[in-house]
Amino acid sequence: MNVRTRLAPGELGETEPQGRVAVVIDVIRASTTIVAALDAGARRLVPVDSTEAAERRSASYDDVRPLLCGEREGLPIRGFDLGNSPREFVAESVGDRDLVITTTNGTRALERVRGAQAVLVACLRNLGAVADELRRRGRPVLVVCAGRGGRVGLDDVWCAGLLVERLGASGPVQPDDGARVAMQTARGLGEPNAGALARTEAGAALVRIGLGGDLDMCASVDSSRMVPMLTGEGLVPAGLRP
Amino acid sequence: MNVRTRLAPGELGETEPQGRVAVVIDVIRASTTIVAALDAGARRLVPVDSTEAAERRSASYDDVRPLLCGEREGLPIRGFDLGNSPREFVAESVGDRDLVITTTNGTRALERVRGAQAVLVACLRNLGAVADELRRRGRPVLVVCAGRGGRVGLDDVWCAGLLVERLGASGPVQPDDGARVAMQTARGLGEPNAGALARTEAGAALVRIGLGGDLDMCASVDSSRMVPMLTGEGLVPAGLRP
Repeated sequence: MNVRTRLAPGELGETEPQGRVAVVIDVIRASTTIVAALDAGARRLVPVDSTEAAERRSASYDDVRPLLCGEREGLPIRGFDLGNSPREFVAESVGDRDLVITTTNGTRALERVRGAQAVLVACLRNLGAVADELRRRGRPVLVVCAGRGGRVGLDDVWCAGLLVERLGASGPVQPDDGARVAMQTARGLGEPNAGALARTEAGAALVRIGLGGDLDMCASVDSSRMVPMLTGEGLVPAGLRP
Repeated sequence: MNVRTRLAPGELGETEPQGRVAVVIDVIRASTTIVAALDAGARRLVPVDSTEAAERRSASYDDVRPLLCGEREGLPIRGFDLGNSPREFVAESVGDRDLVITTTNGTRALERVRGAQAVLVACLRNLGAVADELRRRGRPVLVVCAGRGGRVGLDDVWCAGLLVERLGASGPVQPDDGARVAMQTARGLGEPNAGALARTEAGAALVRIGLGGDLDMCASVDSSRMVPMLTGEGLVPAGLRP
């Protein structure tokens, strides 16, 4: 299985997603939040790249309007229903609802891989489930780390490396340079916990704004079997689509 | 010592080099060639970003014209005096001469850090010398990996990690996420040799065009004490400037 990994979205060539299954990783926190939302019974999440687009999207609904979710500089957006803390996304708040979500790095990375054969979302919580889904599909893989402000984020590279290692455990893998860097990072650091995530740049920034409590959910390896997949209607559980 | 590392030039913020000593790394091959050229007695190397700029620069000389050096897609440029193989840069060819050099990734990375307090060039050959120079200067460091076509190159990240490890051996280091990824890569892979470099994407590309013989020089850790520094007149030995 051919596995390319882009350690930051800016490395991505325009046509590179074509013919590949893309996996977008934003451990702190968009990927974790998306998995939590679908686990909590949200029907779908529509990722958009601005607060204005989120509001437009919401206004276009005739019936029950979608919940507006997301962050800017880590904090909830004024007038939105939910922020980007995975802890907020429980059945009581999001069950059976449509969500529109905009985050600084994660939703932008999703935009960049639209041309892929399929687009999945991975975080530490669903590592094993995503690895199984990739093996099942058997296509070349393109892992894209969302990073922070266009730069490499250790949390995402770490998660990418663990994912490639998982793929390697179930069959042969041909990693590119980016995937090899990610794998060495994961091998060197082992499995993360909340304390280790707090020492990454994204984790430290979260602690500084008082949201360090999110890191327990972000660090919880293999706590979910949910594989979010991007479709024309937004992010839905991959199992619902062939 | 605060050490930031950008694993590809696109991650670099515009004002980020300010107040820092920048270190540009392009192991295969621009950095290695620059070190070899100065070791062979070249007076200076003027990095330019195009073959046209190289020719204009050469035409501006009144006396002995500079040698034109560089590559496109790894191969020598038609009409130029030398390619980008470090093996070509010996005293007989470059001693006491001015050189104008253009390479795909290395000289472009140099352009992007012009605002730094100082700009040094590192490769595996001069790791220890560059680490000593950085300690002597005692300023915050910005390591920039040249990569390949805007993407991460394992050879450069590996070298960056070895450099940060060297800095860590002579005093405390505060690495950012990028530096931590590079350090884990270097720790996991150990010290490179020509065979290991041939398994990186840049190394494999070099082998494919018949220039794999360059990799011995690229892989030769600590074989030089030369620290190239970028000045208004081009790249010169750092020891010549305060």
